[in-house]
Amino acid sequence: MSNLRQTIEALAQKARQAARVLSLSTAAKRTEAIQLIARAIRKNAADILAANEVDLKHAQATGLSPAMLDRLRLDQGRLEAVALATETVATQADPLGEALESWTRPNGLKITKLRIPIGLIAIVYESRPNVTVDAAVLCLRSGNACILRGGHEALRTNQALANAIHEGLQTAGLPTEIVTLVPVADREAVMILGSLRGIVDLIIPRGGPGLIEAVTATAQVPVIKHDAGICHIYVHAAAELPMAEVILLNAKCQKPGVCNAAETLLVDASIAANFLPQLDTALRSRQTSIRACPLAQPYMPSSHAASPADWATEHLSLILNVRIVPGLNEALSHIAQYSSGHSDAIVTNDTIVAQRFLSEVDSACVYHNASTRFTDGGEFGFGAEVGISTGRLHARGPMGARELTTWKFTIQGNGQARA
Amino acid sequence: MSNLRQTIEALAQKARQAARVLSLSTAAKRTEAIQLIARAIRKNAADILAANEVDLKHAQATGLSPAMLDRLRLDQGRLEAVALATETVATQADPLGEALESWTRPNGLKITKLRIPIGLIAIVYESRPNVTVDAAVLCLRSGNACILRGGHEALRTNQALANAIHEGLQTAGLPTEIVTLVPVADREAVMILGSLRGIVDLIIPRGGPGLIEAVTATAQVPVIKHDAGICHIYVHAAAELPMAEVILLNAKCQKPGVCNAAETLLVDASIAANFLPQLDTALRSRQTSIRACPLAQPYMPSSHAASPADWATEHLSLILNVRIVPGLNEALSHIAQYSSGHSDAIVTNDTIVAQRFLSEVDSACVYHNASTRFTDGGEFGFGAEVGISTGRLHARGPMGARELTTWKFTIQGNGQARA
Repeated sequence: MSNLRQTIEALAQKARQAARVLSLSTAAKRTEAIQLIARAIRKNAADILAANEVDLKHAQATGLSPAMLDRLRLDQGRLEAVALATETVATQADPLGEALESWTRPNGLKITKLRIPIGLIAIVYESRPNVTVDAAVLCLRSGNACILRGGHEALRTNQALANAIHEGLQTAGLPTEIVTLVPVADREAVMILGSLRGIVDLIIPRGGPGLIEAVTATAQVPVIKHDAGICHIYVHAAAELPMAEVILLNAKCQKPGVCNAAETLLVDASIAANFLPQLDTALRSRQTSIRACPLAQPYMPSSHAASPADWATEHLSLILNVRIVPGLNEALSHIAQYSSGHSDAIVTNDTIVAQRFLSEVDSACVYHNASTRFTDGGEFGFGAEVGISTGRLHARGPMGARELTTWKFTIQGNGQARA
Repeated sequence: MSNLRQTIEALAQKARQAARVLSLSTAAKRTEAIQLIARAIRKNAADILAANEVDLKHAQATGLSPAMLDRLRLDQGRLEAVALATETVATQADPLGEALESWTRPNGLKITKLRIPIGLIAIVYESRPNVTVDAAVLCLRSGNACILRGGHEALRTNQALANAIHEGLQTAGLPTEIVTLVPVADREAVMILGSLRGIVDLIIPRGGPGLIEAVTATAQVPVIKHDAGICHIYVHAAAELPMAEVILLNAKCQKPGVCNAAETLLVDASIAANFLPQLDTALRSRQTSIRACPLAQPYMPSSHAASPADWATEHLSLILNVRIVPGLNEALSHIAQYSSGHSDAIVTNDTIVAQRFLSEVDSACVYHNASTRFTDGGEFGFGAEVGISTGRLHARGPMGARELTTWKFTIQGNGQARA
C-alpha cells in the first residue's frame, strides 16, 4: 500500500468515526456549529487572506489564466460573503429525523421511513476555495462528515479555511474530523478516495471533464457527478419574439462560464427571418460570437459556420451555436442527441407544444418560457447547494441539504412473526 | 472490441431506444402489456416447462446441489404462481407522472418535481428463473427497459420465459427490446454490462458475494447492490421472553436460506439463565446448530464454541450464533461491527431502550418487537420487489416499482430571466 493511500485511508477512517458521532447529534447542535464556523471565519480572516496571497503568488508564477486567478482570489468582501452564506445555512431547516412516510400494516406493524445522513461524503473540486466552506457546511447541516480534496492552487487557502472550520467545530464540542481536508491535491488522491469501499459512502466530483471522467471510470463507491451543461433554448414558431430574445440573451450572456448557461439556440424555420437578424445585432453588442448552421447564416451577418463538433461542445464562454429546425420533432431529436441532460428550454405560447416538450425532453430541468439560468439550489429555494447533479440516481438537478440524505425504515411491532 | 462486447453493446443500444418508446407510453398501455405477458406465460407453459426440463437435466449432470436444483425447477404450480404475481403487478398503482412536489417561486416560476423512469436497467442474477419475469414486469410497471443476465443453469428456461414476455409486449404493440435477455451467462457479460456508460443507467446485481464483488469493483455505471444479510436479534433484559422466543425462532428457522433471516442472537447477561436453556431445546427440535460465546455455552447444552469468523458469516442455513452481552451499549457495538446493514431487531418492553436502538442502529430496517423476516417488498406493502438494497444511495431496503424511478423538474414561467 502506497504511503499516500495509507495516509488517506487513515484520515477517512477517522472521518467515518466522526460521521457516526455527528449522526447522533441534535439539530440545535449542528446549527450552533455552523454559526460558530461563520464566526471563526471572520475571526481568522487575516490568516485566511494571507494564505490566499501566497496561493495567488504561486499561481501567478505558474502562469494560471486571469479567469482562474479570479476564481482563486479571496478578499475581505468575498470572505464576508462566505461567512454570510454559512449563516444562511444555519437558518435552513434541518432535514434529519423527518418521517418521510409512515403507515401501519394489516398485521399491526408500524413502518416509518426516516430521513438520515448518508455518512461520509468525499467531495473533489477545483480552484474556488469558497467551495471548501460551502460543501463542509452543507454536509454538516445534513449530518454528514466530509472529506474534501480541493484544487492544488488553493491548498494553503483551503488549509486556512479548514482551520477556521475546525475551530468552530471544536467550540461546539464536535470532532474536528467531521470536516477533513486531504493535504495533497494530486489526481491519485482522487482515485484513492473513490476506492475506499466501506469507508466513503459517496463521492461527488465537481470540475472539468478530466476530473469527472477519472472519477466515473475508476470509483468503486457511488458517484454523483456534476457534469457539463450543454443547454438548449428552442424558440418555437408560436413564441413571443421579444420574450424569446430576453430569455436567450439571459441564458447565453448573463454569466456564460457556468453550467446552466445556454450553448445552442434552435429556431423554427418559419420565424427565422423575423427573429434572427435582430438577435444578431443584440448578440454582437454583447461580444457574443455566433456559430450558425447553413440555413441560419444568411440571417445572421456576424455569424461563422458551425462545425459538427460545436453542437456537442460546452463553450462556457460568449459563443452561441444557432440551428434552424423545421419544427418541434426535429428540435426534440437535436436535444435528445446533444443535450447533456442538464437544462433545456422552449419558448412558445402554444401550450400543447410546451406540454410535449416538457414531457419528452429527458433532462434534469426542462423549462417553458424561462431562462435555463434558474437551475440553481438558491433559485429553486433549496438554500445552499453542493452542485447540480447530472446523474439519474439518488439526486437529479440542484442538490441541497435534503439531497445529501438517505433513509432507513423503523418497524415497530408487538411480537409479530412471519407466517 | 471483443465479439461478446459488440453483441451486448448492440443489444443494449436497442434496449435503450426501446426504453425511450416505453417512457412515453401510457399507464393503461403498460398495464395491458403486463396482463398480456401473464396470458402468454400460461399459453406457452408447455414450451417453458420443456425448456426447464432440459436445463434441469444438464444441471443434474453437472452435479448441482439439490437446493440449487430446487431453485431452478419450474412446474405447473410454480409457473401459475409466476403468472399470478405478474397479474398482481398489473393491478399495482403506476408510479409514473406523479408530481412528487410542486411549488411557485416569488418570481412566479412554477417548479414541479415529476416522477419518471430511470431508463435502461441491467439486472444480473443467479439460478431462479422466476426472477426473469418478476424483474421484467416490475421494470415495465415503472417504465424502464431492462437487460437481463440470468444464471447459466437457467439459460433455456429464461429464453422460453423471454419468448412469452416478448409475445405479450408484441400483442400490446410495444417493442420487444423493452425486455432483452443476454444470450450468454459468463461473468464477462456482467462486466460488459457494468461498463456501458451512457447506455445502461443502472446495474442491479442479485446473488452471491462473488457476483456482488465483481460488479461493485468494476462497474462504471451506478450500482444498487443486493448484498448479504447478517441480521441480529437482540433480546434485552426487559424483553417478554415468550415473545423473544417466537421472534427468534421465526427469524432463524422459518426460512433460513434468505437474506432477512437472522444469523446472530445477542442476549443480555441478566436474563441468559432464564432464556437460553429453553431456547436451546426449541432450536434443537428445529435441527438448528448453535455457535455460542464462552459465556453462553453453559446455558446451551447443544451448542458448539463460536469462532471469530462466525460473527461475520451469513450462514443462510440452520446455524445460529449466540453471544451474551452486558447490555444495550455492547449490543449496539456488536451490531455496528458485524451487521451488514440489512435488518436488525431488538426485543424489549422498555420503550426508552427501544428508541435508542431504533435511532442508533444504522441498518436499512431496524425492528422493535418483530421478526427481521418482514424485510420484504410484499410485507411492506410495496407489491412486487426487485430485491432488498443494502446500498445507501437512491434506494435502501425493499425496492418496489417506485424505487425504480427517478425525477425531473419542469419549470414553467412567463418570460423570467435571471437578474
